Amino acid sequence: MRALITGGNGFVGRYLCAELRERGHACVVAGRAADGAGSEIDFELDLADSRSVERAVAEARADAIFHLAAQAFVPRATQFPLETYETNVLGTARVIDAIRALPAAARPRLIFASSSEVYGARAHAELPLREAMPAAPSTPYAASKSAAEAIVLASARTYGLSALVTRGFNQIGPGQNELFVVPAFATRIARIAAGGDPVLPVGNLESKRDFLDVRDVVRAYADLAERGADGEIYNVCSGTPVAAVEILRKLVTIAHVGVEIREDPALVRPVDVPLVYGDNAKLRAATGWEPAYPLMRTLRDVYEHAQKTVAARV
Amino acid sequence: MRALITGGNGFVGRYLCAELRERGHACVVAGRAADGAGSEIDFELDLADSRSVERAVAEARADAIFHLAAQAFVPRATQFPLETYETNVLGTARVIDAIRALPAAARPRLIFASSSEVYGARAHAELPLREAMPAAPSTPYAASKSAAEAIVLASARTYGLSALVTRGFNQIGPGQNELFVVPAFATRIARIAAGGDPVLPVGNLESKRDFLDVRDVVRAYADLAERGADGEIYNVCSGTPVAAVEILRKLVTIAHVGVEIREDPALVRPVDVPLVYGDNAKLRAATGWEPAYPLMRTLRDVYEHAQKTVAARV
Repeated sequence: MRALITGGNGFVGRYLCAELRERGHACVVAGRAADGAGSEIDFELDLADSRSVERAVAEARADAIFHLAAQAFVPRATQFPLETYETNVLGTARVIDAIRALPAAARPRLIFASSSEVYGARAHAELPLREAMPAAPSTPYAASKSAAEAIVLASARTYGLSALVTRGFNQIGPGQNELFVVPAFATRIARIAAGGDPVLPVGNLESKRDFLDVRDVVRAYADLAERGADGEIYNVCSGTPVAAVEILRKLVTIAHVGVEIREDPALVRPVDVPLVYGDNAKLRAATGWEPAYPLMRTLRDVYEHAQKTVAARV
Repeated sequence: MRALITGGNGFVGRYLCAELRERGHACVVAGRAADGAGSEIDFELDLADSRSVERAVAEARADAIFHLAAQAFVPRATQFPLETYETNVLGTARVIDAIRALPAAARPRLIFASSSEVYGARAHAELPLREAMPAAPSTPYAASKSAAEAIVLASARTYGLSALVTRGFNQIGPGQNELFVVPAFATRIARIAAGGDPVLPVGNLESKRDFLDVRDVVRAYADLAERGADGEIYNVCSGTPVAAVEILRKLVTIAHVGVEIREDPALVRPVDVPLVYGDNAKLRAATGWEPAYPLMRTLRDVYEHAQKTVAARV
């Protein structure tokens, strides 16, 4: 298989590229050079510019396109909704248009990376989240992903394209941006271990999320590209909710360091959803996938990466 | 109430404006002059241009915005999906952005006109279509409306806006574009009555749809603006499926003319959905609305309009 990964120089994209190459597939990366943190791109991609999308899709000559590129930070989407819709919704429509522009026999399969955010906040009785539930996005970011899903699936039916949708939950692993909670914890603890102030200000730590190692996430993406069914949506998740406080405790255990956890009201998000986890039965049934990285292994790797980053900054 | 109607110079918009004025409300019309067929607009509106949207929303000083403007012709959406998403999805996001730009106390309620198309093709056992069913859009037009719904509802929750969604089914009435099936029938029969060729080529006439008089549609819109609940979706439909052949027979009865109906394979759409109808219980419960125009009354008015149009063309 020859794969094109949009956002292939981002956090998930780099792992996906490594996974595909390990499986013997060729991998072409389209992304914004500015996002790359030193990793190489084959095509500069601007999702707001149809020509840059067409060029990457046409010239990659791919069998599969993993469309990961997106404005992926939820607070930014709330602040700049139009920019987010332009990138995440119309950008996805441009990828589809570029696929349609190819001769039918040359059209790659599209794997669209959506998000569990499309489910919105659900009552405990409705959990675990399953793919057949109606979407109920409650933020502009979630709406952008729900909108793009609708466009992907409707286009597949209308134009006879091969396409499927993945819904990622909380992806964690070494190298993730510190805007996200787990690497933020790890870096602060690494700083404490390096002799910093032992006080760690935190938000609400009781909320539980479905964390999955990014390496398991990309294994699922690759499996779905190979064996998933067209027109379907697949949760990509661990199926197990874990409280933020448990993550924090495990990181402290790994770091072997004294940490003073202090709740900071400024970090407590007002409409926090207390519990989110998904059902991965559909993914397992379609592909035989199962997670390979236990949480402690993931957190050890995350902490080790954070230690290196902190050491490099000193 | 002071209302701004985007697409207020279109087929439904003109009726809505008349209905609102009859109820004693003020009505401001934003639309494209080119669509107006002679009716007047207060603001020239280009949904692809944020400034024209901001200007209409800011200067109308409305209590309610009925957002009807859209690329509304399904085959055109399939041919030009990006243009359709730009207008129907980002255009709706621009209306919301323009509302957000106003001081909180001056923000109008948003009534977004979506479509039953978002339900997609459903099995008979799933009918009648109800608002709580998951959307399953199967065309770019349907995806554009589903995407815009997601954006409207998520924005309302995130930014605390007052907004609701209506899902229109098959709207019929005098003055509708002849691209749609009922006015197309009426005009052809009026031509036959005026001495034309009595052969009437038709597509599949067995498919049943949920037709509702446009005057009942706009009564529902006005009722929902006055009494609908925020964050909710309301079907606007008759609740009764009627076969195309029944519409045709009734029009022939009204016209009192000999018509030779001939099936033309070129007019038979390949993936026609045999049966579509909705449940209007939620609309009735919220507002007390019920339809006031029986089908025969609607078809008489449609036929009378077609006769005038044909006479004017001769």
